[in-house]
Amino acid sequence: VRVELGDRAYDILIGSGLLDQIGSLIHDRLGDVRCLIVTDENVAPHYLARCKSGLPEGEKTAAIILPAGEPTKSFDHLQNVVDAALSARLERGDAVIALGGGVIGDLAGFAAGIVRRGMKFIQVPTSLLAQVDSSVGGKTGINAAQGKNLVGVFHQPALVLADTDTLETLSPREFAAGYAEVVKYGLIDDLEFFEWLEANRADLFSGAQSAQLRGEAIARSCAAKARVVAADEREGGVRALLNLGHTFGHALEGFCRYDASRLVHGEGVSIGMVLAHRFSARMNHASPDDVGRIEAHLSAAGLPTRLDQIPGEKPTAETLMEYIAQDKKVARGALTFILTRGIGQAFIAKDVPASEVHKFLAEDLGTA
Amino acid sequence: VRVELGDRAYDILIGSGLLDQIGSLIHDRLGDVRCLIVTDENVAPHYLARCKSGLPEGEKTAAIILPAGEPTKSFDHLQNVVDAALSARLERGDAVIALGGGVIGDLAGFAAGIVRRGMKFIQVPTSLLAQVDSSVGGKTGINAAQGKNLVGVFHQPALVLADTDTLETLSPREFAAGYAEVVKYGLIDDLEFFEWLEANRADLFSGAQSAQLRGEAIARSCAAKARVVAADEREGGVRALLNLGHTFGHALEGFCRYDASRLVHGEGVSIGMVLAHRFSARMNHASPDDVGRIEAHLSAAGLPTRLDQIPGEKPTAETLMEYIAQDKKVARGALTFILTRGIGQAFIAKDVPASEVHKFLAEDLGTA
Repeated sequence: VRVELGDRAYDILIGSGLLDQIGSLIHDRLGDVRCLIVTDENVAPHYLARCKSGLPEGEKTAAIILPAGEPTKSFDHLQNVVDAALSARLERGDAVIALGGGVIGDLAGFAAGIVRRGMKFIQVPTSLLAQVDSSVGGKTGINAAQGKNLVGVFHQPALVLADTDTLETLSPREFAAGYAEVVKYGLIDDLEFFEWLEANRADLFSGAQSAQLRGEAIARSCAAKARVVAADEREGGVRALLNLGHTFGHALEGFCRYDASRLVHGEGVSIGMVLAHRFSARMNHASPDDVGRIEAHLSAAGLPTRLDQIPGEKPTAETLMEYIAQDKKVARGALTFILTRGIGQAFIAKDVPASEVHKFLAEDLGTA
Repeated sequence: VRVELGDRAYDILIGSGLLDQIGSLIHDRLGDVRCLIVTDENVAPHYLARCKSGLPEGEKTAAIILPAGEPTKSFDHLQNVVDAALSARLERGDAVIALGGGVIGDLAGFAAGIVRRGMKFIQVPTSLLAQVDSSVGGKTGINAAQGKNLVGVFHQPALVLADTDTLETLSPREFAAGYAEVVKYGLIDDLEFFEWLEANRADLFSGAQSAQLRGEAIARSCAAKARVVAADEREGGVRALLNLGHTFGHALEGFCRYDASRLVHGEGVSIGMVLAHRFSARMNHASPDDVGRIEAHLSAAGLPTRLDQIPGEKPTAETLMEYIAQDKKVARGALTFILTRGIGQAFIAKDVPASEVHKFLAEDLGTA
């Protein structure tokens, strides 16, 4: 899949066994470069040795292994990665390689964007979520006390290698969470893709054809995201459509204090997409039938779809509204939501009355 | 002065009394925005109240006062500024204002470039050096253990306000240091400007006409830098000409461990420009007569021009070569220097033999 961004255009390569060819794939595109591999403690035992074995030996390839998990997206670890790149004497034409999921990709990409005011960056996403979402589009960043992803840069990779073999080491829950973002691309503007997913979901999750079906789903997802990003790199317009389900989803993640044992990102997005469709139906934009169809598909994939499926303390409408108001997608105080007219017909709704959202959540939580 | 950078074009306003009009100047260009003023302990007593008084009162204008000096360009202070911007609930369309010299401009600009992946940025440079150099061009950054300005982003300001009144509070030494960068623009490609400086230097430093002459010198300097930046925003080519005198200068600063009591940036550049011309003459590119003429002009302005004028321990040629090799302008191991064919005729020389530079420095230091 080619991402068309003028002089920053790049390729996303998707397939089985790419990790073993990493050396020649990088050399073909970037020439003889030094590399810093950034990875985490979960991914390193599985893939770091294979990644390194394809790259030049000795001082040309450095590596840094960080703790796994969301708290790694911090100023402290950003500084650690920057220091590792500078200590390895990497120059502007050299590359930072992110080997891992979204956390590693966001952090390593941010570091690559600021070392010497911008180095080359290569994504090797090892989770489904990272392969279909965070590795495409150039958004990088870390979290702040005030919220997630509030500090970062736009920095496009020079190359993305999505090796579908790495999905084998994902837990079923992580795989399902990534699948929520795959479904999202169907819901935004591609009814036919959603129907393809309905027809192939079971075989994609397991079975003899799963590798080939996964590759196809990832390629279609990346192509969908690449189209949107090429049209609106800096999120001035249509790129906001990619936030379908994310305003509610982020609020739920915030409410759970990003505790992955309660809710991971893809699960928040799954519930958020159902809420966005149900709210759209309530506002008479969409048919309630679509809500049921989406809910059935996500449930069958093992994803939560309702607020009451979140374990532990239940949120109140007031609490969720506070998280929504804090969300960075709030433009100058007005609430901007991604709503829909049906499957494959999402649209950007500006100036959605907060009172309507509040009423909807209160009803949904049975506290109206 | 207009900086032509397509959809990121911006104005540099130069003149007396601009600080008192800051509110309306910002409002005319950016509309009704919130602001975070970033300044330091030296500048705040002189100008923070005036800057604030022109901006909206209350929660719309926040301020953070940092320690003065080069060590402020650190990850810790970057995090402080980012935190102040987020705590003030600034959004992408809001502005970070840098009120101060180059240190504050580099740090605040970097923060503006990474908060919410890029906020508006306004430069209010209060030193001559910042007015003619660091406030133009979009380079921002902090220092790392491995060297100066090794971490940062390119982030263009939305507006630059160079109020010539703020030069009144500069020490003569700081003023002279900034003047070295003014002279640089003549040396690069504008013999006529250098001759204008020769004719007007005394009146520019003091006298009834100094305010008007300073404004003219600043405007010509900014226009010269803006032309180069517009042609090469990311320093792939001609922008390197702006480093005339800087390879030697940075080595001298590094040798002095950035101790401002021994050598400030402009003084390093002054010595560095003379060395670059003398080395060019030695390589038979330029006439030795020009060296004398440049040295006379810089000396008359109160600037050092020779290595033996640096107080304290003297450098050796070996030490300086090590600092030069570390300089980030070294492209993949080869030495790139800005040399000259005479005043106003600088050029980029790639693959300059390190051995020739070493021999030259050893001779200059009398240790050959």
